[in-house]
Amino acid sequence: MRKAVIIVAAGSGSRMGGELPKQYLELQDKPILIHTLERFLSFDPEMKVVVVLAPAHRELWDRMAASYEIARGLTLALGGASRYESVKNGLTHVDQASLVGIHDAVRPLVSQDTLTRCYDAALRKGSGIPVIEMDESVRKLDRQGGSSHMVRSSLKRVQAPQAFRSERIKQAYQQPYTNIFTDDASVYETVYGAPTLVEGNRENIKITTPTDMNLAQLLIDSLE
Amino acid sequence: MRKAVIIVAAGSGSRMGGELPKQYLELQDKPILIHTLERFLSFDPEMKVVVVLAPAHRELWDRMAASYEIARGLTLALGGASRYESVKNGLTHVDQASLVGIHDAVRPLVSQDTLTRCYDAALRKGSGIPVIEMDESVRKLDRQGGSSHMVRSSLKRVQAPQAFRSERIKQAYQQPYTNIFTDDASVYETVYGAPTLVEGNRENIKITTPTDMNLAQLLIDSLE
Repeated sequence: MRKAVIIVAAGSGSRMGGELPKQYLELQDKPILIHTLERFLSFDPEMKVVVVLAPAHRELWDRMAASYEIARGLTLALGGASRYESVKNGLTHVDQASLVGIHDAVRPLVSQDTLTRCYDAALRKGSGIPVIEMDESVRKLDRQGGSSHMVRSSLKRVQAPQAFRSERIKQAYQQPYTNIFTDDASVYETVYGAPTLVEGNRENIKITTPTDMNLAQLLIDSLE
Repeated sequence: MRKAVIIVAAGSGSRMGGELPKQYLELQDKPILIHTLERFLSFDPEMKVVVVLAPAHRELWDRMAASYEIARGLTLALGGASRYESVKNGLTHVDQASLVGIHDAVRPLVSQDTLTRCYDAALRKGSGIPVIEMDESVRKLDRQGGSSHMVRSSLKRVQAPQAFRSERIKQAYQQPYTNIFTDDASVYETVYGAPTLVEGNRENIKITTPTDMNLAQLLIDSLE
């Protein structure tokens, strides 16, 4: 089945403190977004790539695409007012009969093994969500202002890409938005039940702060 | 009320891959454990410090203490077969009428503000547990092999030091060990109910892998 990916690159990146949105910042002499594209196109050169851009970043994108051949000829979609709208716009460019990953532009360190596990599970089970162990104790707040201890071994941290059979996730995104939709798996879950979890890779961090950027510099050399 | 801290330094650090236990590795020319001691003794030079050592590390400790004055004259306790036993041994050296923090030797990046918040809450409320936001989506596994989405804003990641009124935590540590005791707050909670949560600091990571060590090198300069 043909594979596709929606790269959500519509964030403004205000937490980095600079003027350039974080997906356009350079990591080892290349924009983060280029690293992310390389990950997916190394995995499958035939993959359909849909990049969801903030309307205000169109010029930034064009300037980048002029320098990096990998960014040319991709399908561009416009970011909406929320991540939910952005993904929904991206999904209109994806065929029914395919497997689609939904990824963050600022996760350039996803491994090839993680991609294999996500798309394989999507093919076999309908969905493949990469998760890793929780390595800290966790407490859950209650409505009375108190909190209770959670059993850490029962919790998993969720990464991306979250991969799905396209017809399912396109259907799930027809629902009206509610604030329990914090990721694509939660949108899928309300229609199709619990998604299939697969192993992610620890390096696959989301770059949102200058510290994350420094950490990514360290991690990128260790990635296969 | 007099303050005390139990520094749990009994871990073998096997995940670092080297021969030296991780608390003795150098971060900017000083062992991690020395950084950790400096944090607490800068906060309160009168603080009683109890260091819980693995019996096998006694020689390492002595050699370190010969080079760093701050490590001399502290109270030493022996690590037990589990973290629970180690903390319990450490608590025998702490007075009833004091405030005690229980800290990991491998968390050298706790801020002075976090320490203030932890000990203040312990004085006023009986306990002060530093927590930070959960910055990733989380799924909870169920017994049927499925999972469900958690509301991320209701979850907090727990750090150290976990601070308490001494008489309370000494009492709580009289309980027989059960496997729900994954941190000191969970031991406290079964006797005294939900502990008081305070804001931690993001840099306050637990150093357990070589990547954490690299990250700590980056973070240490940013800390006040």
